[in-house]
Amino acid sequence: MATQTPTGSALAVDALLDAALGPDATAPRRLLTAAIAAFAERGYAATTTRDIAGRAGMSPAAMYVHYASKEQLLATISRFGHEQVLGAVRAAAAGEADPGARLAAVMRTLAAWHATHHTVARIVHYELGALSPEHYAEVTALRHEIEQVVGGVVAAGVTSGAFDPPDTAGAALAVLSLAVDVARWYSERGPRGPEGIGELYADLALRMVGARGV
Amino acid sequence: MATQTPTGSALAVDALLDAALGPDATAPRRLLTAAIAAFAERGYAATTTRDIAGRAGMSPAAMYVHYASKEQLLATISRFGHEQVLGAVRAAAAGEADPGARLAAVMRTLAAWHATHHTVARIVHYELGALSPEHYAEVTALRHEIEQVVGGVVAAGVTSGAFDPPDTAGAALAVLSLAVDVARWYSERGPRGPEGIGELYADLALRMVGARGV
Repeated sequence: MATQTPTGSALAVDALLDAALGPDATAPRRLLTAAIAAFAERGYAATTTRDIAGRAGMSPAAMYVHYASKEQLLATISRFGHEQVLGAVRAAAAGEADPGARLAAVMRTLAAWHATHHTVARIVHYELGALSPEHYAEVTALRHEIEQVVGGVVAAGVTSGAFDPPDTAGAALAVLSLAVDVARWYSERGPRGPEGIGELYADLALRMVGARGV
Repeated sequence: MATQTPTGSALAVDALLDAALGPDATAPRRLLTAAIAAFAERGYAATTTRDIAGRAGMSPAAMYVHYASKEQLLATISRFGHEQVLGAVRAAAAGEADPGARLAAVMRTLAAWHATHHTVARIVHYELGALSPEHYAEVTALRHEIEQVVGGVVAAGVTSGAFDPPDTAGAALAVLSLAVDVARWYSERGPRGPEGIGELYADLALRMVGARGV
């Protein structure tokens, strides 16, 4: 794996780990990169700690110094992914005052993130059931905060009269769901890049909530 | 597994297999039911043919009479799932003449199917990469036909002036994606059942394409 030219997906993993770990943390970074590649390829359940250590060029014993189990690696990846999404949607929401512009910014950010980070996003969204109860609770709390940002933006637009959705909570859930599913179908070989998807999805989100003038 | 009370999900698997196999085909049915349960629990890669045979109360040798490999089981499940969705969306589209009513019927059907059949839908959508090249091509053709139905309904509405989406192909893709993602988040313990989700999503789909009068 180490000799391949980095793909867009590998660059996205690097960017996510830069943001989470900083430029150092070499051994944890190699292990997280290896775990992401292994989970993406075979799924969490079929991956062994030996697979991950081998991909990282380390012995299982050297791996255990940093992560006690593959579940610790999954939990770390899941926490980094969710924290990054939460930070990005909070920044997007804080940058706009108008309800429509705010929802558009949040959706643009969510959809583009799920395209750029589709490899990590699939792991993060599809392997929730493999987390330990404590890690599941931790990640569920982060997911709840992301839902609160999206739900809050939609609800504020309804309160101000800017939005008129069929069902406020249901529309907010659907907006988030639409963005998350980008990770499932997104391909670097497809006709739309992360920015183009972000623009289209911002427009669709405004339509879903019945924003004035869309 | 056999001694548990059937859950909504198990009843949905039964209904899907009834439609695909008829009331007979006892051994294939037991093997498909076992494979669905095993793939849903551990993922395809971590499931062994021994797991599946064991869950079905059969020896691996007895299993091989019916299915040569676990990939054959995955391909069969995937084909049944896609054929059922394709038949349902075609019937929904054929039952309505008005573009708006047609899109609403298609989305209601798609969203409700992905809620009711969330267990099979997750396998079908998330394990595509595990299919053999021939089975992948077969399933991709079915997926393309489903996309053609949804895309055709949206495009016909644009041509007739009933819809005004930001991007016809992009909106059609997003409508289908929104319905597919129901399988990821749907829970039988959630506040909305398949019918309620179908109604909400029919409304959202009409909004996404800019249907007149929504």
